[in-house]
Amino acid sequence: MIYQASVTAPVNIATLKYWGKRDKNLNLPTNSSISVTLSQNDLRTLTTASASPDFTNDQLWLNGKLESLDTPRTQACLADLRQLRKQLEDESKDKDLPKLSQYKLHIVSENNFPTAAGLASSAAGFAALISAIAKLFALPTSSSELSKIARKGSGSACRSLFGGFVAWEMGQLANGDDSQAVEIAPLSHWPSLKAAIMVVSDDKKDTPSTSGMQLTVATSDLFQYRIDHVVPQRFEVMKQAILNKDFNEFGKLTMQDSNQFHAVCLDSYPPIFYLNDTSKRIIKLVEKLNSDAGEIVAAYTFDAGPNAVVYYDEANETKVLSALYKFYGHVDGWNGKSYEQEAQWSGVSRVILTGIGEGPQVSSESLINEQGLPKSTK
Amino acid sequence: MIYQASVTAPVNIATLKYWGKRDKNLNLPTNSSISVTLSQNDLRTLTTASASPDFTNDQLWLNGKLESLDTPRTQACLADLRQLRKQLEDESKDKDLPKLSQYKLHIVSENNFPTAAGLASSAAGFAALISAIAKLFALPTSSSELSKIARKGSGSACRSLFGGFVAWEMGQLANGDDSQAVEIAPLSHWPSLKAAIMVVSDDKKDTPSTSGMQLTVATSDLFQYRIDHVVPQRFEVMKQAILNKDFNEFGKLTMQDSNQFHAVCLDSYPPIFYLNDTSKRIIKLVEKLNSDAGEIVAAYTFDAGPNAVVYYDEANETKVLSALYKFYGHVDGWNGKSYEQEAQWSGVSRVILTGIGEGPQVSSESLINEQGLPKSTK
Repeated sequence: MIYQASVTAPVNIATLKYWGKRDKNLNLPTNSSISVTLSQNDLRTLTTASASPDFTNDQLWLNGKLESLDTPRTQACLADLRQLRKQLEDESKDKDLPKLSQYKLHIVSENNFPTAAGLASSAAGFAALISAIAKLFALPTSSSELSKIARKGSGSACRSLFGGFVAWEMGQLANGDDSQAVEIAPLSHWPSLKAAIMVVSDDKKDTPSTSGMQLTVATSDLFQYRIDHVVPQRFEVMKQAILNKDFNEFGKLTMQDSNQFHAVCLDSYPPIFYLNDTSKRIIKLVEKLNSDAGEIVAAYTFDAGPNAVVYYDEANETKVLSALYKFYGHVDGWNGKSYEQEAQWSGVSRVILTGIGEGPQVSSESLINEQGLPKSTK
Repeated sequence: MIYQASVTAPVNIATLKYWGKRDKNLNLPTNSSISVTLSQNDLRTLTTASASPDFTNDQLWLNGKLESLDTPRTQACLADLRQLRKQLEDESKDKDLPKLSQYKLHIVSENNFPTAAGLASSAAGFAALISAIAKLFALPTSSSELSKIARKGSGSACRSLFGGFVAWEMGQLANGDDSQAVEIAPLSHWPSLKAAIMVVSDDKKDTPSTSGMQLTVATSDLFQYRIDHVVPQRFEVMKQAILNKDFNEFGKLTMQDSNQFHAVCLDSYPPIFYLNDTSKRIIKLVEKLNSDAGEIVAAYTFDAGPNAVVYYDEANETKVLSALYKFYGHVDGWNGKSYEQEAQWSGVSRVILTGIGEGPQVSSESLINEQGLPKSTK
């Protein structure tokens, strides 16, 4: 007997950045953050979680490869979910309710985008993992409650529990019980928000974000000022800009906060660099596009790597995409769109055209066969 | 009758950065700064200032080309110097003292380094201009007093009025009378301090420092914290590190302050970038060198452009230069020094090996002929 559930979860890209942990084990942040959830048509993780009395140990297959579940973070997530299921089982009047909390789990997870694209997939990955197991366990838990569990896996994963515009409220409690994601506005509030991801090739290995954050917290003199005085104010302004669908304010603050995040990285010692010359070229391109348009029609943001995410409203699609196409029209990902090309700039390996999207979705597609093993393996 | 005097003046490179003006016309800074004066054997401006009743207007030849003296900043410098001379003439009992304050000036100025090297020459240029005219006018004025005049020409020029280690005290007065350079320690205090300048090729035009500063002051949220809370404390620590000849402290703070200066540039809106991928590569190289050495033996610093200045003590010359030579040994400027080369990295066009140096020096070399014109022109 194998019980199973499949869920897809989205990638989210912060517009007000999460950088800095006040508790490394619980992934509690030094500041609140805001993100946009991206469409699962283009970027998503599909995870099937299964439980069976016949399974002898917990196992995870990630993109076809057996991966360890034996990390403190993943273990913390599984323990939380099993405890919630245990509670359900204990409180249930249904004697036949299977004791899934005692069964071992087989989990199979796959991304619909190439890992080589260098897109942080841990947020979608943990959001899908937690959502799939919650579904398998039939937990009545709310998305904000689940977001706290996902947060323990990977901080920003908590924001992938919702679609649309999402806030991760940093919270104050030492145990993290108030550090959770909440919805600012659903996809339906502003469905015309689009994103062009410019995948930037880079030969150097970036500083992993966890150790980067620790270094910034420990060494940057400017960091403390950012989290105490800048972010709290920006959090309110950005929330309001989203509620007002004010792209000008939203875009400007998105760019400023991306820049300030990279500024505190540079103020760390030794300095951390995520932007490279291609990233900077894209920044200049977006600046020129906005200055030519006489208003902010596009907003760049960069996470802990050189890839650019350019947000824009569908109403300005031609303006924005033609400006990017002018120099990067020769790379993959334009989906048949075509504009005038001026030159072939290098440094970008592909473009992913996407937009705002929904939160986790139950899927009818299963990645597990009758033996409880990944379908793709024999 | 032509009166003349020739003076050479040095380049200085800040270790605690000047970035931000509180008064743009008077070049009054938002924070105090500290610099090392570099040797004039390698980098200097030679200026001959001449005055004659026969000259019909003020003229300046810079590196063989006639340049305008008709800028508010240069005019402010000339007016100050003429007023000091006028005072001297008025107070003198010598009836024959020539009325140089009423004569027009012919000024000829030449750098001993190629402009193409992209080294900011305005500091040495204004320091030489002010020193040469002060010498021509036989002013009894102190170097700190002259530094206030040089400051009006180009802020950082005030620091080139001294050799060795120099502080530019920001001052508090609105008229700038207490915003001047003072000597922290002379060259003789720590003569073994060396500098390797890595001239980085760059195709893009950098944001001019004056407009860059204005943008940072107006738009960076982190900037105000830097000048209020970070720089005042660093100023004292760096002064003490210099007095103690503590390269470890001096070097670490030099690197941190360079990084923080570039961080507030990045926090400006739109962001200002001076470091490029080659600059970052040099930073990583210096980091590795220090980490291999188990102590700080080299310290990078970057001004408003991608060129690196690497400070080190002569005692560590082999360690430091061989690390740089390993990848940039194929470029010009090693002066016959040779180490093991590992690879040929691009991005650096030449190396200038130099060290700490003296302040302005009277020169016996004149750039002016008997007609009061540049010797090089016919």
